[in-house]
Amino acid sequence: MSLLVTGSIGIDTVVTPLGKSENCIGGSAVYFSMAASFFSPVRFVGVVGDDCPFDLAKVFAGRNVDLAGLEVRHGSKTFRWQGSYQGDMSQAITDGLELNVLAERPPIVPEQFRDSEFVFLANTHPSLQMQLLEQLAAPKFIVADTMNCWIENQADELKKLLGKIDVLILNEGEARMLTKNDNLAFAAAELRKAGPKIVIIKKGADGSIVLDSNNEFFMLPAFPTKLVKDPTGAGDAFAGAFMGYLASVEKTDAKYLRTAVAYGTVTASLVIEGFSMSSIAAVGKTVIDERFAQLRKMTEF
Amino acid sequence: MSLLVTGSIGIDTVVTPLGKSENCIGGSAVYFSMAASFFSPVRFVGVVGDDCPFDLAKVFAGRNVDLAGLEVRHGSKTFRWQGSYQGDMSQAITDGLELNVLAERPPIVPEQFRDSEFVFLANTHPSLQMQLLEQLAAPKFIVADTMNCWIENQADELKKLLGKIDVLILNEGEARMLTKNDNLAFAAAELRKAGPKIVIIKKGADGSIVLDSNNEFFMLPAFPTKLVKDPTGAGDAFAGAFMGYLASVEKTDAKYLRTAVAYGTVTASLVIEGFSMSSIAAVGKTVIDERFAQLRKMTEF
Repeated sequence: MSLLVTGSIGIDTVVTPLGKSENCIGGSAVYFSMAASFFSPVRFVGVVGDDCPFDLAKVFAGRNVDLAGLEVRHGSKTFRWQGSYQGDMSQAITDGLELNVLAERPPIVPEQFRDSEFVFLANTHPSLQMQLLEQLAAPKFIVADTMNCWIENQADELKKLLGKIDVLILNEGEARMLTKNDNLAFAAAELRKAGPKIVIIKKGADGSIVLDSNNEFFMLPAFPTKLVKDPTGAGDAFAGAFMGYLASVEKTDAKYLRTAVAYGTVTASLVIEGFSMSSIAAVGKTVIDERFAQLRKMTEF
Repeated sequence: MSLLVTGSIGIDTVVTPLGKSENCIGGSAVYFSMAASFFSPVRFVGVVGDDCPFDLAKVFAGRNVDLAGLEVRHGSKTFRWQGSYQGDMSQAITDGLELNVLAERPPIVPEQFRDSEFVFLANTHPSLQMQLLEQLAAPKFIVADTMNCWIENQADELKKLLGKIDVLILNEGEARMLTKNDNLAFAAAELRKAGPKIVIIKKGADGSIVLDSNNEFFMLPAFPTKLVKDPTGAGDAFAGAFMGYLASVEKTDAKYLRTAVAYGTVTASLVIEGFSMSSIAAVGKTVIDERFAQLRKMTEF
């Protein structure tokens, strides 16, 4: 089925205990599309300014990513993020943020994308997520991400969005903040009551916890990688592989959902082994499938 | 096979966001034995002072726990611990500690226990753990726990102990402290190089990560319980069910190890649902087996 993503394209500068990567390509829609494209064609919707140093056609060369929804907005500037990680690298520290085009009007979904069935609304202002959604004819499976600043400042808008989506993907800190509860099993149940049929809480190196459409839990550990260079984009790559897989099988019930979460998990484990896109761009689908098989073997009992 | 535990018996006072439990029974050997006794007979070795308000024969009434190794030391005082938990309750805060008998000579292993094959050395001074071990004729499978204060202050003694044991069980904070590395996959590999054939790192609500005797990883999420009242004893109950199961099947290879970790996980999940021993003492083996089946179902993909 057709898979559409809308999200950010960024110029990232990242410092981790293992090095620094300056003015490299980043952004939720970019990480998502890279990961999803291993599984399914991707329809890309996003905006950059005319200062953008990256040629996305080259970034996605040889991959099935349709850039018809990429807008280069003249007179605007590209989104920039400066971040760092310390210790176990479980938390990104934002050292600098220039929203630039992300603070302007949302991009237009091209006519030929409006029939998209699987939709990922990457993290942005919840009312922009809603505006993007309204441009689609009849989406069948809507997944959204969010983050702490919208939870704190746009709670009402976010609540409306939760009533419109099928899956909410968020990290453990966000889940605790949204529900004001530290117990993630409890938080997942509370979030599910707020609208989404499925809730996925990402815990970084501790894996993820899913409450599915049958109100049943699925938990999956992270793939145990010993070399974490740069966690940036892991969450969006998780979402990308997750949705890319589901769009490829055209199924969303519990059994397929679990496989999708496992594909998300191993694809994210590849992203964090290199700075920016370097490691995920260097592997083929075979490597993802090998890790999938290893993860299954490492969790069976 | 015969299973012996040596560890503490404590008078605990615990405060959590859900309540307070004063002067209740605690201690590593007590939680361990309670959990292990669902699976296998237990040989108990430990010391209390003559001020001990608990009758352990009553605590373990109807359970297969042989108290021949329980010493009531006249003129000494029982170990006491005061602790509290906040937020997600992942860390115990020690508010008061009276080592009392634990700071004295170790207990004597009774003659009839000296042929024990499976041995759990609960957390105490590593040289005491060594002295207890030396009293045994030919232990076949030795599991030890440790904690931050010994890692900081008794590193050399602890190193010697690591060379003598089959399994090291410790929590994630301790693993990071011992290896000076935040990555748990890396830490597990480093710890395994230090001696034990198997390393089990407990992560509380995030489950556990195991590096087995084939140098292969096994990861298992925690059982998602929504009602955590008091995490005290979860780690020792984990170890108890883990070893009780292995002693019952008389096997320790990877397949059985995984089942044992899963039994440890679900038994710990029952302990934390009540203060002190209240919840674990109230259930039968059927409840443990049900959770085991549920956990398998919640982690399969």
